[in-house]
Amino acid sequence: MSHFLDSVSTIITVFHQHAKEDGDQSKFNRRKMKEFIQKEFADAIVVSTIDKILQFLEWDGDGEIDFNEFLLLVFRVAKACY
Amino acid sequence: MSHFLDSVSTIITVFHQHAKEDGDQSKFNRRKMKEFIQKEFADAIVVSTIDKILQFLEWDGDGEIDFNEFLLLVFRVAKACY
Repeated sequence: MSHFLDSVSTIITVFHQHAKEDGDQSKFNRRKMKEFIQKEFADAIVVSTIDKILQFLEWDGDGEIDFNEFLLLVFRVAKACY
Repeated sequence: MSHFLDSVSTIITVFHQHAKEDGDQSKFNRRKMKEFIQKEFADAIVVSTIDKILQFLEWDGDGEIDFNEFLLLVFRVAKACY
């Protein structure tokens, strides 16, 4: 498996490790997402910024974060921090 | 840097290595995207499927693939293959 595919599979695995099963889909709740970002981006982001990010993101209204929303959030934070 | 963040940074780097600079944004064109998927998912996907995937994806109409579209495409293919 290429380094690229290994990276893709790591991200999918990490999502499923943290997300709770919700019917046929896994989802993050907002609190868990905040904790996750704080842990992963601890050295590059302050808590108030995380709150702003979570507020700005247009969730699909259910207050929970599905895989696509997780992806876009994580990569947006990563690009902002690095 | 955590394994998770390392994976995120690998994906961002690979995108920028392959995408051409287009003003202030980098983009993939359709041909390059097809080649990229063929290379990365060679052992798990046939060419006709790649064409279908590229057709189904709702590009924003400019025929080019920006970073978010690249993300969603790659993870959709990865989840379908593995």
